[in-house]
Amino acid sequence: MRDLKELFVDELRDILSAEKQLLKALPKMAKAATSAKLSQGFEKHLKQTETHVTRIEQVFESMGETARAKTCKAMQGLVEEGGDTIKEDAEPDVKDAALIASAQKVEHYEIATYGTLVTWANLLGLKKASKLLSQTLGEEKATDQKLSELAETSVNAEAAA
Amino acid sequence: MRDLKELFVDELRDILSAEKQLLKALPKMAKAATSAKLSQGFEKHLKQTETHVTRIEQVFESMGETARAKTCKAMQGLVEEGGDTIKEDAEPDVKDAALIASAQKVEHYEIATYGTLVTWANLLGLKKASKLLSQTLGEEKATDQKLSELAETSVNAEAAA
Repeated sequence: MRDLKELFVDELRDILSAEKQLLKALPKMAKAATSAKLSQGFEKHLKQTETHVTRIEQVFESMGETARAKTCKAMQGLVEEGGDTIKEDAEPDVKDAALIASAQKVEHYEIATYGTLVTWANLLGLKKASKLLSQTLGEEKATDQKLSELAETSVNAEAAA
Repeated sequence: MRDLKELFVDELRDILSAEKQLLKALPKMAKAATSAKLSQGFEKHLKQTETHVTRIEQVFESMGETARAKTCKAMQGLVEEGGDTIKEDAEPDVKDAALIASAQKVEHYEIATYGTLVTWANLLGLKKASKLLSQTLGEEKATDQKLSELAETSVNAEAAA
């Protein structure tokens, strides 16, 4: 019978896999983006994602656990759909709109997962883990917010015109 | 070269597939839940999901398009992971915590997708579509909020004790 701590470690392994998949996908998305703002946004998030991986490793370490990833199937699906978007033959602005949509699905997967991890860390009294994971959660939410603004103000407006 | 309207229709087909996959998954999640509150929550969301499918069909109709689903790979990944959770051998409260986590990932996938659809409907001047999809977006956000409260106040607290 598994307890909440085991579940927490399992979820950490899932998000470690997700972040590592994202490390490979983001450079391709940055390259596929037409808008300089969007491309730079993906580059910036790539740097953040490296920090997110480091934080997950620190959480494992703080618990005396080995940092090991467990293939995240949901992120595989998201990255696969994102790959279809990259190959898409569309107007540059429309393609940017599609890239933003893919990226926001990824961000929301991470927001849900880090939200769960923070709640569980608090319940388990894992203060350091809670602090590290909260920082990442805040950054994922900020990224999603920026993508929403890009979608509403620049990229899509041109695409719809 | 594809335009924003084609992209919008494609995304509608994706979420129609996602909602239909969810119609099959939710009864299993309701059955697997131990807490009566959680189980009833899943049952209630099943009823809402039926309405969400109807609204998507109404959006297709309002555009003179055929309501056709296109397999959503991301939701396949999420449902597969949820299925692993259902089979999990864990303390009842821990299992409920895991079910809530799975459900919140699903909600966030939908929040991201409906958010994109509403933005695009507005850019395309599709008023009826925007109204219908906004209603669903609001319901998905409310469901996610309720799941967060359940995670923080009842289920996980018992699981961690």
